[in-house]
Amino acid sequence: MDFFTKEDEYLKFLEEIAVLPEGFKTASVPLKFFPKEKVLEKALSMNLSLIALDEPTRVFAGTFTRNRFAGAPVLVGRERLKSEFSQGVIINNKIANVCTANGVEDSRSISRCVAEHFGVDESYFFPSSTGVIGWQLPVKEILDFVPKVVKALDGGSLLDTAKGIMTTDAFPKIRRVDVGDGSIVVVAKGAGMIEPNMATMLCYVLTDVKVSREDLQAVLSDVVDRTFNRISVDSDQSTSDTVLAFSSCKKAEVSIEDFRAALFSVCNFMAEDIVRNGEGTEHVIKVRVCGAVDEKDAVGVGKAVVNSPLVKTAICGNDPNVGRILSSIGDYYSNCKMDLDVNSVSVQIGDKVVFDNGVFVLDNDKEVYLSDYMKSVAFDNKKSGFPQNFECVEILVSLPFADGQAEVVGSDLTHGYVSENADYRS
Amino acid sequence: MDFFTKEDEYLKFLEEIAVLPEGFKTASVPLKFFPKEKVLEKALSMNLSLIALDEPTRVFAGTFTRNRFAGAPVLVGRERLKSEFSQGVIINNKIANVCTANGVEDSRSISRCVAEHFGVDESYFFPSSTGVIGWQLPVKEILDFVPKVVKALDGGSLLDTAKGIMTTDAFPKIRRVDVGDGSIVVVAKGAGMIEPNMATMLCYVLTDVKVSREDLQAVLSDVVDRTFNRISVDSDQSTSDTVLAFSSCKKAEVSIEDFRAALFSVCNFMAEDIVRNGEGTEHVIKVRVCGAVDEKDAVGVGKAVVNSPLVKTAICGNDPNVGRILSSIGDYYSNCKMDLDVNSVSVQIGDKVVFDNGVFVLDNDKEVYLSDYMKSVAFDNKKSGFPQNFECVEILVSLPFADGQAEVVGSDLTHGYVSENADYRS
Repeated sequence: MDFFTKEDEYLKFLEEIAVLPEGFKTASVPLKFFPKEKVLEKALSMNLSLIALDEPTRVFAGTFTRNRFAGAPVLVGRERLKSEFSQGVIINNKIANVCTANGVEDSRSISRCVAEHFGVDESYFFPSSTGVIGWQLPVKEILDFVPKVVKALDGGSLLDTAKGIMTTDAFPKIRRVDVGDGSIVVVAKGAGMIEPNMATMLCYVLTDVKVSREDLQAVLSDVVDRTFNRISVDSDQSTSDTVLAFSSCKKAEVSIEDFRAALFSVCNFMAEDIVRNGEGTEHVIKVRVCGAVDEKDAVGVGKAVVNSPLVKTAICGNDPNVGRILSSIGDYYSNCKMDLDVNSVSVQIGDKVVFDNGVFVLDNDKEVYLSDYMKSVAFDNKKSGFPQNFECVEILVSLPFADGQAEVVGSDLTHGYVSENADYRS
Repeated sequence: MDFFTKEDEYLKFLEEIAVLPEGFKTASVPLKFFPKEKVLEKALSMNLSLIALDEPTRVFAGTFTRNRFAGAPVLVGRERLKSEFSQGVIINNKIANVCTANGVEDSRSISRCVAEHFGVDESYFFPSSTGVIGWQLPVKEILDFVPKVVKALDGGSLLDTAKGIMTTDAFPKIRRVDVGDGSIVVVAKGAGMIEPNMATMLCYVLTDVKVSREDLQAVLSDVVDRTFNRISVDSDQSTSDTVLAFSSCKKAEVSIEDFRAALFSVCNFMAEDIVRNGEGTEHVIKVRVCGAVDEKDAVGVGKAVVNSPLVKTAICGNDPNVGRILSSIGDYYSNCKMDLDVNSVSVQIGDKVVFDNGVFVLDNDKEVYLSDYMKSVAFDNKKSGFPQNFECVEILVSLPFADGQAEVVGSDLTHGYVSENADYRS
C-alpha cells in the first residue's frame, strides 16, 4: 500500500507488519515525573520501553553517532558492544541524557536494574534515551518502574513500542521483510526535534534469522552507511543517533548476500520514512547521482543538493529551480577544489531533462509540468499521524567523471520546520 | 550612529559617506525590457549602473566566486583581470547571465560598447550582472542605453548606484573609511534572492589612495578571505559573487599595513551589512572561535555553528539553545575525523557561560536573561528599507587545541526566509 488517507489505514498497515520475530518480547509503559531542571505544576510523561530476547544472544551489533558530544547512552552502548552476550535494550523518550554530570552512571544503573530482573550481567542490556539535551534522567522513578515494564513484556506486536519511543515524530515507524524462514523487523524514531533540543534517530533491528555476529556487524555497518547515513533533514547528526541489531537465531541461516539485500531493503524504506516524518516536511527529495568520481563523491554531491537551503525552500514552493540545484553542485566541487566541465553535466527533475550541454532546457510548459509533478508527490504537513504517501521528488544528476553513483534522500524546508524549531517559546 | 528608527535616518547616514573618492564617476539609470523567456504584458525594469575612473588605471584587483557554475560576467571578469589597464565596471541587475547559450559574448559586447564611448579597449571595462539565472540579457536594449548612462556620469555620490544594483536587497549598502589623505568607499548588493534564482554578492571597492597593483590584489584577497568569505546566509556561494577594487591613485600612499587595516574595517562592516540584509534575517549571529587547531579550523567550527539549521531556527526563536550549538561543533569534528575532549570546551552566549567542563551551565534565570538579550539585538524583518541596528547575537566557543581563532557571521532562519524563498510562486 502506497497511499494513506486516514491514520487508521496506516495503523492497520503497521499492525500487519509489527509482528515480532521469534524469540523477542517487548513492552512500553508511560511514567510520570517532575524534571529537576524546571519548576512545573504538572508532571511530565515519558515512556519506558523494553525490547528483550527470551534468551541472551551472542549475535548483536550496533552503530552510533560520531558526533563528538555523544550522549551517555552512546558512551555506555559502545562498551556494551564488546560484551559476549546481549539480551536487549531499555529505552526512554523525553530526556536524552546528554552532557549531564551523572549521565553515564544514570544510564548504567538503569540497564543494571533491568539486567537484575533477568538474572544477567548489566552489560547484557543497552540503554537508549532520546529527548531534551542537558536535563538529567529521573533515575529513581525509572528504577521503580522497571518491574512494571518487565512484567508487561509480550511476544506479540512491536506497535506499542514503536509509539512509545516517539518524541515529536509524526507517526510510528516499522518496516519488515521476510527472508528465508524468518524475518527482519525494524522499528525507529526520528528525526524529530523536541523541547527544544533533539534530532535523534533511534533504530532497532530485530531478526530471528541465524547469522554470525561478525557478519551481522559488517552487514549492519555497510547497510547503515548506504541508508541512514544518506538521509538528511537538518544536515547534522545528533548526539544520540543509534542503530542496534539483535538476532535470536531461531530460524535457518540464509546466504550473507540475501541477508544483506533484505536488511538493505528494510533500512532503506525506514530511512525514507524518517525523512518523510521530519519536522514540517512536505516533500521528500531523492537525489540520484551518477557519473561521479566514486561513491563517496556521489554521496557528497547528493548531500550538497539536499542540504542546500535554497533547493529545499524551492521544492517546498513546488518550484523546479534548476539554478539552485546547479549552484549547489558547483559549490560542492569548489569546496572539493575539483574542476567541473559544466557542459558535461545534465540534470533531470522527475522525467524531464532541465539542464544539458551547459544550458537550461526549460520552458514555461515544462516548468508548469514539473511544478504540478512536485505538487502531486507533496503531502499536507498539517495532517499528522500518518504518512500520506511514499513518493519523492526525484532529481537525477549526471556527472562526467567515472562510474561513482549514490542515492541521497532529504526533506524540503518549510514554514512548518521553522515553526517547530523556532516558535516553541512563543 | 548604530540605531535607525526610520529609513530617512539611514539614508542620511549613507549620503554622508557616499561621496566618491577622487577620480571616480558613477551613474545608474532604469531601463525597460521584455525578457525573451516569458510572455509578459508589462515590461520589466532593470538598472544599468556604471562606475568609471576619469582615466584608465593600472591599479585594480578582483576576486570571484569559486562556484563551478560561474556566470558569464565572472568568466569574462577573470580575463579582464589580466589586462594592463582598467577603467571601471558596467553593472545590470534583474538578470544574472548564468548558463545561457550566448552569455559570454553578451557580457563582452556590453563592456565593449561602454569601452568604445571612452575610446579604450573592451578589456578596460568589467561586466557585472545579478538577477535571474538562465535568462538571457536584453543585449540590444542595453547597448542602446549605454550612451545615456555614460552621459549621466557624475562625480558626486554613490548612493544612486548603491540603490541601482540592488535586487531583493532590503536596503542600499555603502561603507567608507578615511586613510591618509584619501578614502576607501565600498558599495555592495547581496545576499538577496530574486525571481527565483539569486544569492549573489556584488561588491565594488573604490579608493584614491595610491597603492601598487600587486599590493592591492594581495590585500584584497586576504581581506575578502577574512570578511566576505566568513559570512553565511545560505551556506552556498553563488554563481556570480564578485569583488572588484580600483584605485585612482590620486592621493598619497600609506603603509601597506595601514591600507590593509582600513580595507579590512570597511569590508568587515560591509560583510555584516550583507548578512543583516539577508532574506528574512531577524538576528545576525557572530561566532568567535578561539583555541582551535589553526585559523582554518576556527573558521570551520564557526561556519558549522552559523550554518546549522537547528542553531539558526533556535536563535530566530530567541532561544539560547546550547544543545544545538554543541551538537553542531561535535558534528564538525566528527566530519573532520578529529577527537574532541568535550570537558575542555566552553561556550558563552552574550556575556554568560552556558557550557563548561562537560556540562550545561544554564538555569531558568539565565535562560530568560539570554532570551531577553537575543530579543534586544533582534530586528523586525517587516520594517524593510533600513537596518534597525548594527548589533549581533554573540557566541564564543573556546576549544582546547591551540591558538587558532576566527570570527564568522551568519543569520538566523526565519519564516521570512522561507516565505521569500519558497512562496514566490503562490
